[in-house]
Amino acid sequence: MSDQAEPGFVRVRLDLSYDGKDFSGWAKQTSRRTVQGEIEDALRTVTRSSVTYDLTVAGRTDAGVHARGQVAHVDLPEAVWAEHEEKLLRRLAGRLPLDVRIWRAAPAPAGFNARFSALWRRYAYRVGDRPGGVDPLTRGHVLWHDRPLDLDAMNEAAALMVGEHDFAAYCKKREGATTIRTLQKLRWVRDPATGVLTATVQADAFCHNMVRALIGAALFVGDGRRPAAWPAEVLAAKVRDPGVHVVRPHGLTLEEVAYPADALLAARAAEARNVRTLPGAGCC
Amino acid sequence: MSDQAEPGFVRVRLDLSYDGKDFSGWAKQTSRRTVQGEIEDALRTVTRSSVTYDLTVAGRTDAGVHARGQVAHVDLPEAVWAEHEEKLLRRLAGRLPLDVRIWRAAPAPAGFNARFSALWRRYAYRVGDRPGGVDPLTRGHVLWHDRPLDLDAMNEAAALMVGEHDFAAYCKKREGATTIRTLQKLRWVRDPATGVLTATVQADAFCHNMVRALIGAALFVGDGRRPAAWPAEVLAAKVRDPGVHVVRPHGLTLEEVAYPADALLAARAAEARNVRTLPGAGCC
Repeated sequence: MSDQAEPGFVRVRLDLSYDGKDFSGWAKQTSRRTVQGEIEDALRTVTRSSVTYDLTVAGRTDAGVHARGQVAHVDLPEAVWAEHEEKLLRRLAGRLPLDVRIWRAAPAPAGFNARFSALWRRYAYRVGDRPGGVDPLTRGHVLWHDRPLDLDAMNEAAALMVGEHDFAAYCKKREGATTIRTLQKLRWVRDPATGVLTATVQADAFCHNMVRALIGAALFVGDGRRPAAWPAEVLAAKVRDPGVHVVRPHGLTLEEVAYPADALLAARAAEARNVRTLPGAGCC
Repeated sequence: MSDQAEPGFVRVRLDLSYDGKDFSGWAKQTSRRTVQGEIEDALRTVTRSSVTYDLTVAGRTDAGVHARGQVAHVDLPEAVWAEHEEKLLRRLAGRLPLDVRIWRAAPAPAGFNARFSALWRRYAYRVGDRPGGVDPLTRGHVLWHDRPLDLDAMNEAAALMVGEHDFAAYCKKREGATTIRTLQKLRWVRDPATGVLTATVQADAFCHNMVRALIGAALFVGDGRRPAAWPAEVLAAKVRDPGVHVVRPHGLTLEEVAYPADALLAARAAEARNVRTLPGAGCC
């Protein structure tokens, strides 16, 4: 997983979205429908290649998790890229299923690695608390919570979580991997028209289940079952707390991945590899 | 279909939403899954009744058409209403499938008829024209148009259609039914964040296929295949024009039904029955 394409290859950045409902997550798995698998198959077909060009992704999402601003890169032979560059998007649009869309395919700047060059990832988690349920048209990406939620209490709790911490209490354990993360943003807003609450969760990187555990803790504060200080107390204990409920995946959407200026991409990738052993496994 | 509940009955107004994707439309049909059928079954079950209480609806939507602001009424025996009033919403929420939600169930004012008392219906039709397709998370209620659309041209054409006209050119013919309608609003906006174009279409009532034919004509103007004056020329001809493409149903959502002040409900119902023979069949 280098930060330069091999000689004779072009590193292509892909910006894409998917509805995670009918996928077993991003990462390729035998006999499972995955986002990575669908895109690699489509690329192979539209470029009439016999080989599969592996994708590297910014955020490996779990089964049921969506993405609107996912980023990946793929290294294509120069000849393949030259032949297909112009029509690649339109052909992929025709070949890919409607629950995956690729918006942009363009040569990446030197030093670009979709995963290691990323500065941060921004997720949204959406929740409806209307007694009747969730708008049928958005039920695929909005969780229903059957108790009214107090926005201020949730934001009070959220403010105590931001910053660099050991998020062990909110992460699925993985041998040898650090759970130190910098949570840059955790903030709730309520849409005045629909009443839907959206959490914005942004960090340099996330460990597995981290976002959905943070949301689970927040909902217990929002519906009054726990005080606003509780999530931070759990955080301080640094051990997985069975009282923290990991919410369902369908409310979670990867909205954006940010990268530094081109000149800083390679340095960022090196930094991300060294400072912390980023998790090899899933992310949310 | 009177404007008063029979003695011993309470007329209950229901405000509801549904995702039309997996329904054969609103109106009950044997061996077909319909919105009316699902709700009447749920009502029968939660009230433990042996009889079915028939629903009267404001806008009978076709297969695949959604609703966010649909209104219906049902006449329930006073004893049934008294027993179930308090828990009806929560029980219906538990019994109904997630693609139908009832937000409110409350006694209707005297003279209320969900269909005939309505002043107007407001629909939205949503279209995406990004080359890559439509956001996978909203593809269920947004149509993809594979050519870029000119908002100004579409609004120029739309302005020529507003007012009271014979919309025969845009309606599925139905013997004995008038196609005179008052199109109160036809206006396009583009969401700056998503790029999705939304048409707001509001009229006292619609004849069958009218909205989707109006949208089909507008899209031909938007992508440059037809001039802005064309839809109005078709309108003036008063005969169904094969050049008018009826767009697919999934972009269409009934957003709101408006009613007059309580004191005017009965008069409005009488007016709606007399002035025009409102269509017995489908609406959009």
